[in-house]
Amino acid sequence: MKRILLLICSAISFAVNATEYKIHSAVELQALKLAPGDKVVLADGQWKDQRLVFSGKGTEAAPIVLTTEKPGVTKLTGTSTLLVEGTWLVVDGLYFTDGHSEKEDVIVLSAKTSYSRVTNTAIVNYNAPDIKKDYKWLSLYGHHNRVDHCWLEGKSHQGTTLVVWLSDQPNYHRIDHNYFGQRPELGVNGGETIRIGTSTWSMHDSYTIVENNIFNRCDGEIEAISNKSCRNILRNNLFYECSATLTLRHGNNNEAYGNIFIGNNKPNTGGIRIIGENQQVHDNFFQELTGTGLSAAISIMDGLPNPILTSHWQVKNAVISKNTIVHCKESLSIGAGKNADRYLPALNTVFNNNTIITDRQPVNWVDESVVMQFSGNIADVPAGTKLPEGFAVKATGTAKDKDGIWQVPGVKPDLFWKNTKVGPAWTSPVLGAR
Amino acid sequence: MKRILLLICSAISFAVNATEYKIHSAVELQALKLAPGDKVVLADGQWKDQRLVFSGKGTEAAPIVLTTEKPGVTKLTGTSTLLVEGTWLVVDGLYFTDGHSEKEDVIVLSAKTSYSRVTNTAIVNYNAPDIKKDYKWLSLYGHHNRVDHCWLEGKSHQGTTLVVWLSDQPNYHRIDHNYFGQRPELGVNGGETIRIGTSTWSMHDSYTIVENNIFNRCDGEIEAISNKSCRNILRNNLFYECSATLTLRHGNNNEAYGNIFIGNNKPNTGGIRIIGENQQVHDNFFQELTGTGLSAAISIMDGLPNPILTSHWQVKNAVISKNTIVHCKESLSIGAGKNADRYLPALNTVFNNNTIITDRQPVNWVDESVVMQFSGNIADVPAGTKLPEGFAVKATGTAKDKDGIWQVPGVKPDLFWKNTKVGPAWTSPVLGAR
Repeated sequence: MKRILLLICSAISFAVNATEYKIHSAVELQALKLAPGDKVVLADGQWKDQRLVFSGKGTEAAPIVLTTEKPGVTKLTGTSTLLVEGTWLVVDGLYFTDGHSEKEDVIVLSAKTSYSRVTNTAIVNYNAPDIKKDYKWLSLYGHHNRVDHCWLEGKSHQGTTLVVWLSDQPNYHRIDHNYFGQRPELGVNGGETIRIGTSTWSMHDSYTIVENNIFNRCDGEIEAISNKSCRNILRNNLFYECSATLTLRHGNNNEAYGNIFIGNNKPNTGGIRIIGENQQVHDNFFQELTGTGLSAAISIMDGLPNPILTSHWQVKNAVISKNTIVHCKESLSIGAGKNADRYLPALNTVFNNNTIITDRQPVNWVDESVVMQFSGNIADVPAGTKLPEGFAVKATGTAKDKDGIWQVPGVKPDLFWKNTKVGPAWTSPVLGAR
Repeated sequence: MKRILLLICSAISFAVNATEYKIHSAVELQALKLAPGDKVVLADGQWKDQRLVFSGKGTEAAPIVLTTEKPGVTKLTGTSTLLVEGTWLVVDGLYFTDGHSEKEDVIVLSAKTSYSRVTNTAIVNYNAPDIKKDYKWLSLYGHHNRVDHCWLEGKSHQGTTLVVWLSDQPNYHRIDHNYFGQRPELGVNGGETIRIGTSTWSMHDSYTIVENNIFNRCDGEIEAISNKSCRNILRNNLFYECSATLTLRHGNNNEAYGNIFIGNNKPNTGGIRIIGENQQVHDNFFQELTGTGLSAAISIMDGLPNPILTSHWQVKNAVISKNTIVHCKESLSIGAGKNADRYLPALNTVFNNNTIITDRQPVNWVDESVVMQFSGNIADVPAGTKLPEGFAVKATGTAKDKDGIWQVPGVKPDLFWKNTKVGPAWTSPVLGAR
């Protein structure tokens, strides 16, 4: 009995020992020695030019939390930034706006950081005065970190919005339920919204999961998501009027499925672009995209002989299944980007059980030497349209549902944003123009 | 005295032994055993579907000649072709028209052919019924062969007009004083007017000379001349309203000089494009060209890392001197064609003593990482135009001479076609539209 009491007391004592600090500056934060279960609250007020360093070692049961007194109201401005370093750390409810970084990335989870989380947090219009200045808004090093329910919008200067940096070990990061708002066209390379890896590390496994995010008008450049590593999963995201694509740019063995692309016939809206080996692209839904070639609904590129890591590698063993492509300007581009240097055709490509609804030619051959394995596909096309073997012509209906999604028998895209919170609790994502 | 008489008789006897044959069919030609000094004349009349094989061994002093009774009147038609095989053979005054080849190239100088010549000969509109069918009109194998004073015009089907085929030995061919008439745009690769080599053989020396030719509206594709081998000289040619370029596509150590490019502001008229090592481009004259990028007056491309033979190799040690560039849309493109795979900047490029007259920016940087060595250049540009170091601003005058050539002090392009016969004796070249 005594012993049980002791255990209970110990538990209570633990709860009591977890301290809540209300602080007013980065200097105060740096001075704290944080213990598992501790909570640091940025007091409401001016948080200008504060370089926050949030470090500590929490536990799974008792993480250390950094938050604000009034999420969405308490703002980090000027040249404020945040470095997160440690384990089981949670950043919750920060809001960077009315400012820019002078040098480093706005939020960094360092290489020593694991099992940590940035949630309910926003970075909005935090732009360098010089459009050519490159810093990221969110950089993920370390492993097993998560970015969820955040809001990142309006990046108009050089540099990817959110980057997963690879190392010699897989990182198992998760990026989910975030709202990536409008990003205007940058005009040069470097305007990606998410990049996972770099060409240098592209043959390493990342095991990052990107799911249930909204990409709204992310037009920074041709790649809204630039996958540059191996074994990532990119699923159930919404790409709404993005003049961009989900690009499997480097690395092998990635899987993109359950994503929804709604173009509303906006110029250069694209789908999924495939480069590399053993990429799986299935159960995605593409509607009213206008991109062609590299920006087609599904684009299979030609590769380079003798490639180095930055090159376009030959496509091998791609499996493209059960996708639904509705009234896109170019449903499928085969051998996209073929040119004098880049001409190795995709090998062993399976394209089966997909549905293409279009008034145009459903298959566009840029490189006629590509051999495709077509089977079980449905084409809802005008009478007389020439089709490869492996397509059956079938009428599928012509109605949109109340959400503007084309109704295709047997196809039920998961409109996750309708019944799941995306973005911070203190604001709501907007589709289309703000 | 007796001995001298014998020598004279012997000489007469030799001349008497040289036989002239008048023939009426390819079968008759094949039956002949030709000796040095012999002459074979195609009798005037029908030469339809004749596969001529002209073989023999002439000597430098007494070549064997194949000609026609009425050059320019006697025509080879239907599916007629000509194979030339031997040494010191001369084909003079043949005219292929009103037909096409069923398979082989129209005129072939075989790998066993040397010191032979095709002159005063024409191939006009000798087009395959199927535009995709590939045969060349003139194929040069062997070594020390010459094509001169010929007229090739109107090729509208797949395949380069005239090809020099490389081997493991230099060939020392000469292609001069020919009139290459209009070639319409082909729409795909393979519409070159002259190609010297192939990527496979591109690192071999060719030592071909291409000089004093007229290229009139050769619009087949971007390369009017495609240089794909080493140590060729391309000089003193006229490119008149060609929507194409002289391209140093593969191989090293080539020299392009004294060429005249007159664009008359026709769309996509280009100049000289540089790829590879130790290319020399000097004393050329470019006027009113509208091409940009790969088709600029002078275009220096970016190269590919780890190139294979078909790739765009990095430019190294180019010397671009004493050229005159007058009112071209893009005078100089640096790093042209830069893309995700092709980004190695030209190294050690000398650009000196050139004159650029333009109302636009005279130097266009596609790749800002290229380091150029500019010196002694003259720019006749509007006040306030930004120039790199190595340019002096100078007014050069604004008048054309009676031939429509822009007058630049100290620059005298050689209008060779005005005082030298170009094309066959029996017809005259036409500049512009026929």
